[in-house]
Amino acid sequence: MDFLWSCLCVLVIQHIVVGVRYDPTWESIDSRPLPQWYDEAKLGIFIHWGVFSVPSLNNEWFWYRWKHDKNPEIVNFMKNNYRPDFTYPDFASQFTAEFYNPAQWADIFQASGAEYVVLVSKHHEGFTNWPSNYSFNWNSMAVGPKRDLVGDLAKAIRQNTSIHFGLYHSLFEWYNPYYLQDKANNFSTQYFVNGKTMPELYELVNNYKPEVIWSDGDWEASSDYWDSKQFIAWLYNDSPVKDTVVTNDRWGKDSTCHHGGYLTCQDRYQPGVLQKRKWENAMTIDKKSWGFRRNAALDEYLTTDELIDTFVETVSCGGNMLMNVGPTKEGTIRPIFETRLRDVGSWLSVNGEAIRSSKPWISQNDTSNSKSLYTMKNSDVYAIVLDWPTTSTLSLGAPNPQPDTTVSLLGYNGGTFTWKSRQGGGMDIMIPAIPANKMPCQWAWVFKLSGLS
Amino acid sequence: MDFLWSCLCVLVIQHIVVGVRYDPTWESIDSRPLPQWYDEAKLGIFIHWGVFSVPSLNNEWFWYRWKHDKNPEIVNFMKNNYRPDFTYPDFASQFTAEFYNPAQWADIFQASGAEYVVLVSKHHEGFTNWPSNYSFNWNSMAVGPKRDLVGDLAKAIRQNTSIHFGLYHSLFEWYNPYYLQDKANNFSTQYFVNGKTMPELYELVNNYKPEVIWSDGDWEASSDYWDSKQFIAWLYNDSPVKDTVVTNDRWGKDSTCHHGGYLTCQDRYQPGVLQKRKWENAMTIDKKSWGFRRNAALDEYLTTDELIDTFVETVSCGGNMLMNVGPTKEGTIRPIFETRLRDVGSWLSVNGEAIRSSKPWISQNDTSNSKSLYTMKNSDVYAIVLDWPTTSTLSLGAPNPQPDTTVSLLGYNGGTFTWKSRQGGGMDIMIPAIPANKMPCQWAWVFKLSGLS
Amino acid sequence: MDFLWSCLCVLVIQHIVVGVRYDPTWESIDSRPLPQWYDEAKLGIFIHWGVFSVPSLNNEWFWYRWKHDKNPEIVNFMKNNYRPDFTYPDFASQFTAEFYNPAQWADIFQASGAEYVVLVSKHHEGFTNWPSNYSFNWNSMAVGPKRDLVGDLAKAIRQNTSIHFGLYHSLFEWYNPYYLQDKANNFSTQYFVNGKTMPELYELVNNYKPEVIWSDGDWEASSDYWDSKQFIAWLYNDSPVKDTVVTNDRWGKDSTCHHGGYLTCQDRYQPGVLQKRKWENAMTIDKKSWGFRRNAALDEYLTTDELIDTFVETVSCGGNMLMNVGPTKEGTIRPIFETRLRDVGSWLSVNGEAIRSSKPWISQNDTSNSKSLYTMKNSDVYAIVLDWPTTSTLSLGAPNPQPDTTVSLLGYNGGTFTWKSRQGGGMDIMIPAIPANKMPCQWAWVFKLSGLS
Amino acid sequence: MDFLWSCLCVLVIQHIVVGVRYDPTWESIDSRPLPQWYDEAKLGIFIHWGVFSVPSLNNEWFWYRWKHDKNPEIVNFMKNNYRPDFTYPDFASQFTAEFYNPAQWADIFQASGAEYVVLVSKHHEGFTNWPSNYSFNWNSMAVGPKRDLVGDLAKAIRQNTSIHFGLYHSLFEWYNPYYLQDKANNFSTQYFVNGKTMPELYELVNNYKPEVIWSDGDWEASSDYWDSKQFIAWLYNDSPVKDTVVTNDRWGKDSTCHHGGYLTCQDRYQPGVLQKRKWENAMTIDKKSWGFRRNAALDEYLTTDELIDTFVETVSCGGNMLMNVGPTKEGTIRPIFETRLRDVGSWLSVNGEAIRSSKPWISQNDTSNSKSLYTMKNSDVYAIVLDWPTTSTLSLGAPNPQPDTTVSLLGYNGGTFTWKSRQGGGMDIMIPAIPANKMPCQWAWVFKLSGLS
Repeated sequence: MDFLWSCLCVLVIQHIVVGVRYDPTWESIDSRPLPQWYDEAKLGIFIHWGVFSVPSLNNEWFWYRWKHDKNPEIVNFMKNNYRPDFTYPDFASQFTAEFYNPAQWADIFQASGAEYVVLVSKHHEGFTNWPSNYSFNWNSMAVGPKRDLVGDLAKAIRQNTSIHFGLYHSLFEWYNPYYLQDKANNFSTQYFVNGKTMPELYELVNNYKPEVIWSDGDWEASSDYWDSKQFIAWLYNDSPVKDTVVTNDRWGKDSTCHHGGYLTCQDRYQPGVLQKRKWENAMTIDKKSWGFRRNAALDEYLTTDELIDTFVETVSCGGNMLMNVGPTKEGTIRPIFETRLRDVGSWLSVNGEAIRSSKPWISQNDTSNSKSLYTMKNSDVYAIVLDWPTTSTLSLGAPNPQPDTTVSLLGYNGGTFTWKSRQGGGMDIMIPAIPANKMPCQWAWVFKLSGLS
Repeated sequence: MDFLWSCLCVLVIQHIVVGVRYDPTWESIDSRPLPQWYDEAKLGIFIHWGVFSVPSLNNEWFWYRWKHDKNPEIVNFMKNNYRPDFTYPDFASQFTAEFYNPAQWADIFQASGAEYVVLVSKHHEGFTNWPSNYSFNWNSMAVGPKRDLVGDLAKAIRQNTSIHFGLYHSLFEWYNPYYLQDKANNFSTQYFVNGKTMPELYELVNNYKPEVIWSDGDWEASSDYWDSKQFIAWLYNDSPVKDTVVTNDRWGKDSTCHHGGYLTCQDRYQPGVLQKRKWENAMTIDKKSWGFRRNAALDEYLTTDELIDTFVETVSCGGNMLMNVGPTKEGTIRPIFETRLRDVGSWLSVNGEAIRSSKPWISQNDTSNSKSLYTMKNSDVYAIVLDWPTTSTLSLGAPNPQPDTTVSLLGYNGGTFTWKSRQGGGMDIMIPAIPANKMPCQWAWVFKLSGLS
Repeated sequence: MDFLWSCLCVLVIQHIVVGVRYDPTWESIDSRPLPQWYDEAKLGIFIHWGVFSVPSLNNEWFWYRWKHDKNPEIVNFMKNNYRPDFTYPDFASQFTAEFYNPAQWADIFQASGAEYVVLVSKHHEGFTNWPSNYSFNWNSMAVGPKRDLVGDLAKAIRQNTSIHFGLYHSLFEWYNPYYLQDKANNFSTQYFVNGKTMPELYELVNNYKPEVIWSDGDWEASSDYWDSKQFIAWLYNDSPVKDTVVTNDRWGKDSTCHHGGYLTCQDRYQPGVLQKRKWENAMTIDKKSWGFRRNAALDEYLTTDELIDTFVETVSCGGNMLMNVGPTKEGTIRPIFETRLRDVGSWLSVNGEAIRSSKPWISQNDTSNSKSLYTMKNSDVYAIVLDWPTTSTLSLGAPNPQPDTTVSLLGYNGGTFTWKSRQGGGMDIMIPAIPANKMPCQWAWVFKLSGLS
Repeated sequence: MDFLWSCLCVLVIQHIVVGVRYDPTWESIDSRPLPQWYDEAKLGIFIHWGVFSVPSLNNEWFWYRWKHDKNPEIVNFMKNNYRPDFTYPDFASQFTAEFYNPAQWADIFQASGAEYVVLVSKHHEGFTNWPSNYSFNWNSMAVGPKRDLVGDLAKAIRQNTSIHFGLYHSLFEWYNPYYLQDKANNFSTQYFVNGKTMPELYELVNNYKPEVIWSDGDWEASSDYWDSKQFIAWLYNDSPVKDTVVTNDRWGKDSTCHHGGYLTCQDRYQPGVLQKRKWENAMTIDKKSWGFRRNAALDEYLTTDELIDTFVETVSCGGNMLMNVGPTKEGTIRPIFETRLRDVGSWLSVNGEAIRSSKPWISQNDTSNSKSLYTMKNSDVYAIVLDWPTTSTLSLGAPNPQPDTTVSLLGYNGGTFTWKSRQGGGMDIMIPAIPANKMPCQWAWVFKLSGLS
């Protein structure tokens, strides 16, 4: 494993030096080494924002669930609160973003410890959060915010932080007549791809130079229909971000979970075992929605404890976590999201050593204690305990200690812990009774095992 | 003259019988005889309706005058009545059309005596008054009215009247990025034409079968850029309205006033002399606007007298008059328009004989009395007097009476009038003192001269 | 009759000189001579404007018809166009008045020939069109126009015209809880009168010095409940308009048609015979509404012909006509109203001699010809003919001519007409065939009979 | 001290039995014992909700700060986001409350451990959150929510919880013309009190039977002007809540901090020493506002730690804490408030024994350790430690232990702690190293001292 990762680093360097070019085939595209920064980052922030943030109910699929699914919550909400002829596009002029302060967002993201953000540039509704030349009067400059939401965040992120800026983009649009026409033609035509999807993707990359392209909305058609491979080949060969950009796998129903850049497979992807390729767990703090919900109650948000558990499990299996927040139509990130982000950041400020730039270890979690997960960096192994041991002994099944193995608790200045080998493998670590106010952090704790082998 | 018009009729019949096909060249297109109904109709109603009907100020160029011209009336209006970030597209959701009753419109148009209507399907703003597949979220079904404004009028006109239904369509759109891109490329590209203009023109014709295509917005580019000739050839050869459709001349800067169907040349076109080709005077009752203006005062509307004068002058020179009304954003035709339309209709109910299916005479107006205008039908000549004679003699310079020439006043049941030849040509008609309540109509009076030559 | 009217003039003079004071009894109040200007004026303009101008449907009783009568047109309109919880007061913030130009209104009123205007200051909805101290947040300064609608018109009228400025005021308010409480108490309490009605009436008079107080909304309670007599006594004795103000009769159910100033009795009051007291015919150009209706069709407005007929009939029986227009929520007087007002003004500019400062004659209309109505001034009698005679003889039954009686047509410069006495009384006037363009006016014609007796 | 509190209980019982009546004098009113439930409750929830929740910016004094103070944040916000003529009352129709679920609110309040709630029924803006008969068209039934906000919460609280329901009411209104008139008259008139304040207070009590009347807005005038004493005498003698109601002290500038029921003195009142009369610390979780602020950042909310500290300090000195939340215009209590309320509730579920029904002890806080605060109940004394001791010894200066004194930690099942007397008074408690996951709670810890004396 360790060897494999080293190889990747070498390949990366080769790539940059030699200037390999990629063909528009999955074989060629898949052969490109992932730029190193992405694997090292581990944590990204996902941001779902759009016209769906105006009704801000149910979830970001509001339009489709209203019109296609006849979802009762939505149907009743519209019936009780709007004139009968009110349409989804009518919401756009209420997307005001009057409190949108990208520098403040950047500050919150920075505080979370995330190293990249992925902003929704356009969701399935088709509304572009930038003044696209390919979305006449259905973009954030023409109606509603009267502002380049994408550009303003890109600028603020780059001016105020070292965070990598990325963009989500939906290939398909539920109700775009061009798309519906191609679909009715069994995707034998490409009116939509040629007139809309591709032009705006090139526009996005050229204008905003995102280092992540998080593609979505691919599942009804193949990557041939979408012209995805051509686009990615350009992205890797000739785009202004060719050396540092990463992309995901949602580029056609033949591609998801198989080809592209890193794999996302499905929402909230958490395989639980080590993966052959780099992958990402895209998940959301609001359990029920990616877009903001005005009526979400407290228990519908994941707790910080749940977030940290998910994060550690993800990293232990080689994944990154892309943690989603939903800003309001006014442009604010609500305190409930801010508190979760700052909590995660405070945990990382103690335990980042075990996370950032770490690699999966030979074991991902411990058979003898399901709550211990592992990462490694250099020659150190980190056992991350999700619940503080209820007894004075922490038993780990996977690590086989050497005589000079030392055990310490990250952030704890009370010295190293004694341990002893377990019969049949593994080790028992003696945990002293550390008073609450001497504990380095909450939610999860990292035991650093040095000199293991 | 009489001969020429007879020839045209023969050609029309030939065309229908033989099934001539037209090439996409101006020569071929110009060779098509105009369907007879159009020349006979004389009067059409023009209807300007769109998102500009929401601000309903200044005129239908509101968007352009606001953003491009910085027109002070508009700039101040917006500043005083809207939030600073309010955009023109934001108006669309206030285009409510709650009182739109197409059957009531049809009744008013019918009462006006008009024989065709031309509804704006899309103006330079690009908003389509029908659910176009080529104007995503910028059409009357998606935002605002939530209704097919074009289709509903087409149906009502056809169900309730014998009026011919026509459509106005703007080729260009001020702010469509595709158009602006083509323009920036000196019209060497046709992204806009291929992706927007042409698809929606075909859609309009196939869906609504309009018998008039009133093209506009052509002037910045050539008919080659617009693909106009191809479209017209299809319209004449293969469209569902190929036998009866008429179109105008605004199909490219090389075409206006030279090629196409009938000529419109410029707004309020009134050449004052006989024309070689059929033409139309498109004019508007509101002197300052084609779209409805909420703050228009009475003296900003043409009087019925002015309308009748203009109409008679137009017809005498072989033209049709297309008289414009501007409905409100609520979907009503205001009483001030209705009163003008019904007045014109009441005048036509007395004097239609001299107008409908008439042809220009050898003289269009009278040198010895500038207020007498002529039309003819069969062997009768009509002298239309715009002001009632102030003396008891009406002198006409052009007609040379024969002994058995008779003179009567349309709608007057007091018998024929005596006359005598004038020395050097012309005739003097003796006008008795007809009491006001015996007069057949107001505004203009028609003397029918039978047995002239 | 002539004697009576002379007496009144003397009384008026006496009043001013001697300074008679009035008691709060109907006997005393009724004894006050009406200021002369009012009888002489003959024509006033009524203006209904308020929150009802926002929905602008059905009529100005919108709120009551919606909530109390469940009027289907209104109930359906609200259901189809508003969110279910939308309330009538919610309309107020849409009362924008952005085009309200009082100087322009003054110009139109002046052109109509009216000599007084009566603006609705507050209708039954309770919304005050001025910043009343007694209508917190339910007035035109606090919500909607953010403007003193009453004060601005008063100023413009006085600066630009010699028109007398008057105010309509509703005593009751449909839904004011104080009023409903008094009503529930069988009007044995006066919470509403003391806290609302009277304070605001005094405020109106002191602030705006109206010369007409047009009271309304009285009919459910007595003048004792309303404290009307006290108010009128103050108005006549001590108010800033004590010498010139006139008021009507709607001051309590015991008062209407019996006491107060002039009598209005009921809407569109047209007794058809001479009355003992001065009276007024309050009527409205829109046949169905006093407030503006957005969807009114042309045939729902009275024609100029109908207006002139009504006016002449009113004046012939000693009444004034108060002709109503309904401005829009935007603050405009629509052209359909403007055209009617200017038409009436153009008629008056020819025939005002027979109307202004005229008095009823001994006969009001003619038995032998129902379309002739009479007025008189000094020693001249005016026979006003509503339809132009269909024969060459106009027969009048009432006037008994003297040898030197002369007959002329107002505005006609063709000399006097011959006549002869009719057997058994009356006279026959010989009408020459006057050409249409020599007629002095449309709609009604005035024959002036001089030297009758 | 202990004796005094016992006396109060006796007096309460006497009061109920004997049925003492109170005169409208402060002496008599002040003599009424406070109903026992209030002192025992310790924690209440304050709810600021009104039209100010619509702009939801700056704070609930939005209107006054905008118009009177010309606060730049507000002035700019209005300028940038609204039409120039937009008024504060125009906000009312946007007060939608579409997600208002009083049962859900009741659940959150219950979970907080609070035993009473105080809902703003009317703030200084004058908008009544119930359909008052004295606030025509400026109440929650007539505009905006179209709902009885007060009544619906009262019902939900009583059906779902045992919480006491109370109401806040502002005596004055910034812009009510009646009030301004009284003020201009140096409060020599009482138009406002008679017509508005008093009628609506009686209406509130009779309709909703609140057990707390939290008066405010008194400070510009005396209790004589406000008729406060008469009202309170009625409240105590004859109202439907006479036996259980409590009220505060803000009944006139002569009364605040001196007379009435319990004392509130000033916002966030925290005297720090024992008080002679029962008092309340009214404070708010958002540090800068009582009304909801849409743009509040996380660090502008008090942390749970700060809330617990404040609460304990308040209770130790004999006060109650009234902790404020600001619902949104949509009717939701945002998760950031919910998390604070549930945190406080979770702390109380462990430590409520030391709080509810407790009384101040002879010492309120400890000189030798400023972070220890005391309460008592029966014979037990509770030392509440706001920060966990950094050493293994907790030193308390005030308690003088007896040989059989025992020390335990509330919620901790690890047995009692050893202690020893300190020289010169006080005691040292030996704190074992309790692991974090054995700690009973966060934020503050209660050491129960039994058998002290």
